[in-house]
Parts: sequence; structure tokens; C-alpha cells
Amino acid sequence: MATIARAHTNIALVKYWGKKDQQLMLPQTDSLSLTLDRFYTDTTVTLAPSQSVDHYSINGQDVTGRAASRLTTFLDIVRQLSGNNTHFTVESTNHVPTSAGLASSASAFAALAAAASREAGLNLSRKDLSRLARRGSGSATRSIFGGLVEWHRGVDDETSFAEPITEKVEFGLEMMAIVIDTSKKKVSSRHGMQLSVETSPFYPAWRDVVADDMVKMKRAIADRNVDRIGELAQENALRMHALTLSANPGYTYFEEKTITAMRLIDSLHQQGVSCYYTMDAGPNVKVIYHRRDREQIMAALAPIFGATNLIVSQPGPGITVRQL
Amino acid sequence: MATIARAHTNIALVKYWGKKDQQLMLPQTDSLSLTLDRFYTDTTVTLAPSQSVDHYSINGQDVTGRAASRLTTFLDIVRQLSGNNTHFTVESTNHVPTSAGLASSASAFAALAAAASREAGLNLSRKDLSRLARRGSGSATRSIFGGLVEWHRGVDDETSFAEPITEKVEFGLEMMAIVIDTSKKKVSSRHGMQLSVETSPFYPAWRDVVADDMVKMKRAIADRNVDRIGELAQENALRMHALTLSANPGYTYFEEKTITAMRLIDSLHQQGVSCYYTMDAGPNVKVIYHRRDREQIMAALAPIFGATNLIVSQPGPGITVRQL
Repeated sequence: MATIARAHTNIALVKYWGKKDQQLMLPQTDSLSLTLDRFYTDTTVTLAPSQSVDHYSINGQDVTGRAASRLTTFLDIVRQLSGNNTHFTVESTNHVPTSAGLASSASAFAALAAAASREAGLNLSRKDLSRLARRGSGSATRSIFGGLVEWHRGVDDETSFAEPITEKVEFGLEMMAIVIDTSKKKVSSRHGMQLSVETSPFYPAWRDVVADDMVKMKRAIADRNVDRIGELAQENALRMHALTLSANPGYTYFEEKTITAMRLIDSLHQQGVSCYYTMDAGPNVKVIYHRRDREQIMAALAPIFGATNLIVSQPGPGITVRQL
Repeated sequence: MATIARAHTNIALVKYWGKKDQQLMLPQTDSLSLTLDRFYTDTTVTLAPSQSVDHYSINGQDVTGRAASRLTTFLDIVRQLSGNNTHFTVESTNHVPTSAGLASSASAFAALAAAASREAGLNLSRKDLSRLARRGSGSATRSIFGGLVEWHRGVDDETSFAEPITEKVEFGLEMMAIVIDTSKKKVSSRHGMQLSVETSPFYPAWRDVVADDMVKMKRAIADRNVDRIGELAQENALRMHALTLSANPGYTYFEEKTITAMRLIDSLHQQGVSCYYTMDAGPNVKVIYHRRDREQIMAALAPIFGATNLIVSQPGPGITVRQL
């Protein structure tokens, strides 16, 4: 017997940037994201009573070292919750276009939480799956749900979980990832956000920014106003990136082509096209726009970045789990 | 008869970014700069009783429109101070390498303040020249003095002026400008800083950052510690640029090559070379280092930016004025 789960990645429109509790993975602020249909992880978990350790593979490659320790730490939580002390075999496949640099621990830990908990005999609600996924990776908290999702920061393990604002996003909101290839080392989001929390003098004000943006963004969603959603998301993203510049030592996730993309989208916007951008802990830029403007945006970006590096995503679904 | 003044530009190590009083040009914070020997303005002012308006030329070109209005507004202050209502002819020459994009209103208004006030019959102290120059352009306040200069923000016209920390900087501090050509429109520093003051949620914390950095920077200068000066300047500059990203609308002065330069200097620094960077309201990057490391830094930067785009400056002198 085995359990297979599929979870989609998500991109935050109001960013999660900083933990309050490293062990419980409680965030400093709420956050809000869009789940994407194009990027997802399929994870198959099998109980393996004969094994003395967990076995992992991702895209057919065995996982060892620190990545394996992180997975084992997570599965220990599943064992503790279920009272089932058996080890697992975990096989994951990331469905992310090759070298897109968009592989995310969000879909990985959401899928693992769902498949492993079910396989261990638990039948968790989506809310509880969200709480469990959180322990693996903060952004995984939101990948349990489809569409537009809110993560309540909460005050403890019980109260820090995500819930959908609207799983069916039917007002034209779309996202285009601009894949910016980079071989440069980056600061991991885990390390980067911690540096911001501990050393940016602007961090305290960021908490207020997010509180404010959550209210505004939910209003824009209620209004089905793609323009306003994009505008708020861009403003929020730039403020998150201001937290990396203002850390000590300061750093930036921007690469040369990140700037190129920002300028190009700004210039399209000035020409009257409704498009906005957001960036996370890496150089890639994601364009937020109404699907009616897709062709126009693509025509402007393709000559610079190459059409194959532009990946259009619709709002994606929540987690699915089935037992084989 | 005519009066000619020469003033050098300066680059802030603790940035001035925001006015408290637009009319008196009182800044929100103190600031601290290094005057540079390579970039300066020579300005000749002649009393022209026969003229009914002021006449200006810069590098042989007549100045008209908004730039001329700004100059007239400034000369009105000189007329008011001196009680001499005569108009002036002003001829300025900017000694800045062609298209360096480093032309600065700092040296221009410092030279104009010195030449026009003397020509109008005033004999102002350097402190009073600094106060006068401030009315033309904030950073001009500091260009009256050589070496390392502090601008006290003050609370009114009387108390907002610069003074030297040390005019003779003899411990190896040097600056290299990396000239990054750009044809892109930029946000003026005047508009940019105001946007930060009015819309960045991080601005209140910036005031505390500067207060703190002024103390630290003066200690580093007292210690003649080039490394520490550079480190503090870089941290301060990145926090200033975080104020542009976090404004509404957010923006950045960084261009692609700004990122290239930052990465390259970071990487040299990681290899053990003591070099740091600072950036102002434009894409150019200025490297801060000890002169003993100049050749090594130049060797690393020249293949990427071209040797002719690397301009080394020693600490420069204060204002000089002579009557012809």
C-alpha cells in the first residue's frame, strides 16, 4: 500500500519574511498567496516496517545529508502525531520546468505532510494538514489550499494555519514567471529572513506594513480587482526586498536581469498595460496581470528573456491525496 | 572685476536622504561626506549693473528655464543678505570627466555661494558659506570644506551647517568611481528623497539609523580605520536604497551594472580585499578602499567596466575663492 499526494506551489502576494519561533515555524506576520497550477510536486509515501531509517528520493535521486535530516525531522513529527513509529520510503517528483529555479519547498512539504500523515494512519483535516506542513517549510502551510490563501500567523502550533480566501479565482488573475537563469550562490530564504528579523532596523515597521497590506489585499480580492491586487503585491514585494538591503550585512536577491525585468514591466505599466511584479528569495520575477493582457506582456518580454523562459500559470488547486 | 571660486564635489558616507524644511533646505538627519579631488566646479561671478536679469552659462552653454529659475532664487538670497540688488553674470565650468554622470549640484552651489557672496560685497565665514550653499542644494552644504565633513542638521537656518571633521585625510582612504553609463531616466534626488520621507514606512527608523551611524562613523574616522569606514558606509548606503524600494511607488536607482559592480566588490571583499561600495541617486557605484589596494581593485574591475570608466579620487580640498 502507498499514498500519493499532489501539492502545488504558491507565490506570496503579501510576503512571509521572518519567523517568530524557529522550532514551531511560527511566522512574524500573516501572509497571503496564490497557488499556481503549473508547478507542483507528486509525492508517494510507503510504510517500510523493515527499514531502520527513512529513505528519500527526489526526481529519482537519493536524498542524503542535511536535506535528508530535515525530512527525517519532519517525519518524526508525523510519527509522534500518529503513534506509528514505522519508517517510510518517500519518492517525490517535482513538476517544475527544467532549471526554472522555481522548485519550492512549499509544494514539497505540503505533499509530504499529506501523503505521510495518511500513510501513517492519520486522517487530518486540511486545517491540520496546513499546520503539519508548516513544520516542514513555512510557505508549505499555504500550499494545502488552492487559489488565494491566507496564512494566519497565530500564536502557537494550534493557531498558525492557512485557509482559503477563495479557492476558485475566476476573475482573470494570472501569473507569468520570468525564469532568470543564475549560477550565482544565493542566500537561502531561511537564512535571509532570519538576518532581516535580527538585523534590519526596518523590521519592526515591516510587521505593520503586512498587517495593513493584508487588509488592503483582502479588500482588493473581494473587489476582484486585478490591478489593485498587482499594485499591492508589487509594493509589498519591494518592501520585503528593502529588508534584505537593510540587513547587516545587507544583500540583495536581485540579479542584473531582475532589474531588466522590473524596468521592462514598469515601462509596460507606464504605457497603460496592467502588469505588476513580485520577487522572492531569488532572481526570478513573477508578473501579475489580467489574462486579457497576457499576449501583450509576452510579446514585450519574449525578445529579452526568450519565450521558453516565460511560464504562464493559472490559479492552481489545493492538495489531492489518494491511496493506492 | 570678478570673483572666481572652486568647489569640489563630495560623496556621502552617511547619506542625506530627506528634507524637513523644503524652503530652508533643512535635512531630516545629520550626514557625513568625503570631498573628492577629481570632481570640481569653477564658477566666475561678475556684477552686471546694466543687466535686468541674471545671466548663466555652464560649460559655455546658456542656462534657461527651470534650472535658471533655481539659480535666480538662490541669487535672490545673496542679494537679500548683501543688500546689493545688482544682477550677476555667472559662468561655470564643471570639471567632471565627460558623461561620468557624476556632475553634482554640490560643487556647483558651493562655488556659486562663495563667488556670488564675495562679489556682492559679503565676506562670509566658511560656516556661513556652508549655510548659504545649503539653500541651493543640500549636499552643497558640505562641499565648502575639504576631507571628511559633517553636516549638522540643525533646527533652523542658523544651526544647519557643515564643519570639517578632518580636512587632511592622511590615512589612505580613497574612492574609485565606477562610471555606469545609462540613458535611462532617473528619479531626481530631490523628488526621490521626498517620496521616501512621505511614503516609506521605514523612514522613521532611518532617522535612528543615521543618528547611530554618525557616532560609529566618527569613531571609525578617529581610529583612522578605512575598513570600518567602508563597512559602515556600505551598510548606510544600502539602507538608504531600501528607502527607495519601500517608497510608494517603490523604485530603485540600481541598473543592471550597479548589481554587477556590487557583486564584484562583494566577491573581492570575500577574497580578502578591503573594499566597500556606496551609491547615490543614480546607477554609478563608488568603491571605498585603502589606497594600497587600488591596483588590485582596478585589475578586477577594469575587464568588466573598462579602465577609462574607473576614476580614482583622493580626498579633496575645501573651497577656494579669489578676486580677479
